Amino acid sequence: MAEPSYSHSELAQAVRNHAMPLEALRYEITPAGLHFLLIHFDIPDLEADTWSLTIGGAVERPLTVTLDDLRSCEARTEVVTMECSGNGRVFLDPPVAGQQWLLGAVGNAQWTGTPLWPLLEEAGLEPRSVEVLFTGADRGIEDGIERTYQRSLTVEEVKRPEVMLVYAMNGQPLLPQHGAPVRLVVPGWYGMASVKWLTTIEAISEPFTGYHQTNAYVVRPGGDEPDVPSTRILPRSLMIPPGVPDSDTRERIVDVGMCEITGRAWCGTSEIVRVEFSDNGGDTWTEAQVESTAHRYGWQKWTHVWVCDRPGPYILSSRATDTTGRSQPDQSAWNERGYENNGIERVAIIVR
Amino acid sequence: MAEPSYSHSELAQAVRNHAMPLEALRYEITPAGLHFLLIHFDIPDLEADTWSLTIGGAVERPLTVTLDDLRSCEARTEVVTMECSGNGRVFLDPPVAGQQWLLGAVGNAQWTGTPLWPLLEEAGLEPRSVEVLFTGADRGIEDGIERTYQRSLTVEEVKRPEVMLVYAMNGQPLLPQHGAPVRLVVPGWYGMASVKWLTTIEAISEPFTGYHQTNAYVVRPGGDEPDVPSTRILPRSLMIPPGVPDSDTRERIVDVGMCEITGRAWCGTSEIVRVEFSDNGGDTWTEAQVESTAHRYGWQKWTHVWVCDRPGPYILSSRATDTTGRSQPDQSAWNERGYENNGIERVAIIVR
Repeated sequence: MAEPSYSHSELAQAVRNHAMPLEALRYEITPAGLHFLLIHFDIPDLEADTWSLTIGGAVERPLTVTLDDLRSCEARTEVVTMECSGNGRVFLDPPVAGQQWLLGAVGNAQWTGTPLWPLLEEAGLEPRSVEVLFTGADRGIEDGIERTYQRSLTVEEVKRPEVMLVYAMNGQPLLPQHGAPVRLVVPGWYGMASVKWLTTIEAISEPFTGYHQTNAYVVRPGGDEPDVPSTRILPRSLMIPPGVPDSDTRERIVDVGMCEITGRAWCGTSEIVRVEFSDNGGDTWTEAQVESTAHRYGWQKWTHVWVCDRPGPYILSSRATDTTGRSQPDQSAWNERGYENNGIERVAIIVR
Repeated sequence: MAEPSYSHSELAQAVRNHAMPLEALRYEITPAGLHFLLIHFDIPDLEADTWSLTIGGAVERPLTVTLDDLRSCEARTEVVTMECSGNGRVFLDPPVAGQQWLLGAVGNAQWTGTPLWPLLEEAGLEPRSVEVLFTGADRGIEDGIERTYQRSLTVEEVKRPEVMLVYAMNGQPLLPQHGAPVRLVVPGWYGMASVKWLTTIEAISEPFTGYHQTNAYVVRPGGDEPDVPSTRILPRSLMIPPGVPDSDTRERIVDVGMCEITGRAWCGTSEIVRVEFSDNGGDTWTEAQVESTAHRYGWQKWTHVWVCDRPGPYILSSRATDTTGRSQPDQSAWNERGYENNGIERVAIIVR
């Protein structure tokens, strides 16, 4: 793969859409401001005091709720690992358009809100309802057309008790960039499902076919292979990059001897039951210690003591496997918009 | 200027070092996570409970203080606009190395801590002390050599009552990425002076000549012109980009008619007394309304009602002038490392 180069607009996106610096994997709960951000347009200008949400469409009793209304409903807190479906896009070859994520498009936050389903029951979904459509206040041009960010979920999906209307993150009111005053959080799914800056929720009688549902966030391998919408997060493991970085190249220097490697692993469908470590780019693997988690949708800590007596260059990798035996590939299959690349990480270091 | 392109390491820096999205100029106090970040190496792993700071060197009574000690000292809160000296670097021609900032390397936060000078008086500077050296815990390779981030200030400078050891930002404990548990804040100066993750403070008897003092953060015009260290923030004004963005190109569409433009202006040496607006790339200027501020080192809001009846492309600019009559240039002079480029902004929009 030739040394890639990036355009001015790719740079402009990169400085807006914050990645989590990977040393922040050390925090069980990602601190405010270190969680990844992907904002298609601008952060909308919404005021908590005047904000309201309508729940309408194919329902029997349309509702309008304020933030105080939601705060007076049953409160629920979930620790959730959220990852962008485009995380790792930059490693696809040939390159694909979109936010040029390395591996930092992730975070693990404590979200507080109220379950969505009781509100939908209060509104009363009509029998013809097949999906629920979520509309955010974020608006702008994408692929040449002015659009608002919209995504839907099936009625079955929104019945999950952990699908929530969220107004707090890590015990603080939701920050503007994370969807204030109220956003959806869909644990287990890639981030695009967790619509920010909610303005309306509508029951609909036909599957939604809008841009961010059937064009963006669809894995499109090309050729004869079928398109597959991006939904649940695939297994992934990442390590806190050991040693010290070079400020310009971000390459790393590690001292010879014993090196305690720590990382996090996660999966949107089941628990991670195995994490392996490699110091030779994935030729051979050693079992690491992986902790279970009290949080069904939160990441799991893993550790490995790596002893390196021989100076020189190394490629460090980790690899997660879930309860079904599904593991990370060496390289993910290329697809047109670069989603779901959960190929193993390759951390280049020099041992000295 | 040819369409620039950026390397993989420049992209890796851009996703780590967060810019403030410019729509966040709407907030008087920049929310957590939207303030710019420039981290040379990694965020260090410091614990507030076990952290301590030594104040030593050419002093009569060396001190060690904990976070609780600092919290029990006189508390002071200052609203401060902090800007990276490299803000706007990307617009220099020919291109220069370093974090490829557009114009988002800024933020306006409420910093709480304790003034530094009383602690230095308690330690008792020896008469031979000429400067005070601040060392952070952040460490890594820069220009091929392993270094710790270090900067000094003159004794005169550290006597200013608003030069503080800071432990809170916007009323919350300092976040890891902003220097937790304790950082220096030097109001009025570019950000490099406000050393994060403080570990030691030393009085020194010779001016400090370390890398981040005499090589980085020095304006070096080249040729026969002398080097000038970067110190106080030059005047600058930026607007909230009007209209809606194109998600890929970040170009903007604005509806024909009346458009209320709002922005912020700041300067590290004096108040901003005039902000002007231009819709033709700076050929002609109109006076905007600029508010004074209760915060000597905080940014000032400005507003302008722009009426645009004619569809087409426009370049919107603003220009700040301080009490001494010093204004922003059309183009700043090029320098080797791309500091202090306070040339006027150029916001490309299409009116439709």
